[in-house]
Amino acid sequence: MKARIDHRTKAIGVFDSGIGGLTVAKEIFRLLPNENVVYFGDTGRYPYGPRSPEIVRKFARQDVNFLLEHGVKFIVVACNTASSLALGYIQRIYNIPMLGVIEPGAKGAIEKSSTKRIGVIGTQGTIGSQAYEKALRALNGTLRIYSRACPLFVALAEEGYIDRPATNLIAEDYLVDLKQKKIDTLILGCTHYPLLKQPIAKIMGNSVQLIDSAEETAKATRQALVALNLLNPSITVGKREFFVSDSPEKFKRISQLFLGKRIGKVGLVDINSY
Amino acid sequence: MKARIDHRTKAIGVFDSGIGGLTVAKEIFRLLPNENVVYFGDTGRYPYGPRSPEIVRKFARQDVNFLLEHGVKFIVVACNTASSLALGYIQRIYNIPMLGVIEPGAKGAIEKSSTKRIGVIGTQGTIGSQAYEKALRALNGTLRIYSRACPLFVALAEEGYIDRPATNLIAEDYLVDLKQKKIDTLILGCTHYPLLKQPIAKIMGNSVQLIDSAEETAKATRQALVALNLLNPSITVGKREFFVSDSPEKFKRISQLFLGKRIGKVGLVDINSY
Repeated sequence: MKARIDHRTKAIGVFDSGIGGLTVAKEIFRLLPNENVVYFGDTGRYPYGPRSPEIVRKFARQDVNFLLEHGVKFIVVACNTASSLALGYIQRIYNIPMLGVIEPGAKGAIEKSSTKRIGVIGTQGTIGSQAYEKALRALNGTLRIYSRACPLFVALAEEGYIDRPATNLIAEDYLVDLKQKKIDTLILGCTHYPLLKQPIAKIMGNSVQLIDSAEETAKATRQALVALNLLNPSITVGKREFFVSDSPEKFKRISQLFLGKRIGKVGLVDINSY
Repeated sequence: MKARIDHRTKAIGVFDSGIGGLTVAKEIFRLLPNENVVYFGDTGRYPYGPRSPEIVRKFARQDVNFLLEHGVKFIVVACNTASSLALGYIQRIYNIPMLGVIEPGAKGAIEKSSTKRIGVIGTQGTIGSQAYEKALRALNGTLRIYSRACPLFVALAEEGYIDRPATNLIAEDYLVDLKQKKIDTLILGCTHYPLLKQPIAKIMGNSVQLIDSAEETAKATRQALVALNLLNPSITVGKREFFVSDSPEKFKRISQLFLGKRIGKVGLVDINSY
């Protein structure tokens, strides 16, 4: 029995290309407060969005190796690009339960859409991979799906360009076609995009629901842990550890924007050695 | 004598964090058409702008190792961030003549400024390093220097967001302070920024001269080759080779935007093995 209990108290490993995955981590902290969490942000090699599938797979493998060294029980790929391009690949290699952000987001969108006209926005990598389309179609073959890459959104979110006229203009450029398609649900297929919810909602209007994959992924993580009997039985708040591959101080500073509060020590990792 | 002639026919090595250094390569092709050139763009790890000095130095070292393997006679660090943070470091390690983009840009600005009120714009890494300030002050202690990081400019240039209202708004946000300082010369301290010359000039007005470090660096390269007796005596157009650490096809496509013409084969390099 002891070994099994120990297993449940192990941490959930969360990784992202950088800081965006903190939107997912935040929802996990909220929904699963007693879980220990190890977060790795690959700030030394971000962004993953514009990179090739080969490179993203290699990076994801190194990210997983790092988390495994910390003895995690479950891995959340809190990065849309890595989920799109590398999840299947790392699931075949490793013997640990894993979850990406794509399927939870797709499921959430289908549940909330009544017209079954669904939009997806994300980085070039995510949209080019058609990962959301495939996940959505696997769940429901009769959907109408409209996709659009919004490559400037990540930079705008990270620079705090949220409530600015320039951001509204760029959002309009990107979203005007989707609006004309009369979708009723829009998947924010990039972990940075929840920061731009306001300008996106302003363009899309009240009739379009925005699906935040961070929330959906946290829900799916809880469901998976329950199903696998891996929920941490602890009744105290879990330990949260943060690691990055570059600029820990900068990560600490920007993380406030994502988590709404300060975090403690951030460890520096030489990820290329994994 | 033979060995010396061989040395002069070796290639100039040019490296950048990705594609921006092509603005420098283009000027080298123009000014030194008979030189052979090997270009390496670190597209698998770009951008360098937001990364720490430690990481940029490590990357620059690997980039140089790759070029040395190609037997280059001279190295141009065609990246402002790497020039700011890593040039001194790699110059101490390697026994090959090298040039960055900072000093040529600084020299060009001082030559062209009459009021000696000079502005500098660049990435967070370049501006944070104060490399231009130091280079400018080393040449002339009485200058007034005003700097500003423009982190969204790289993304805008790469997305082809040149002649757009959003770009004008962002340029205005970034440049309004510099304009009030009544500078007469502005150093475009990032290899991407020449692509945004139009919106930058629109904000700054006709009285401000824009210094394109690409042109200045090509001139300085020619001067150095002459001084070192390393000019290629060939009278035919040199061989130009391109290598990247990710997505050669994408590089080939975007390179047209920078070079104004198509390039041939682009090689793929595993830069972490250097």
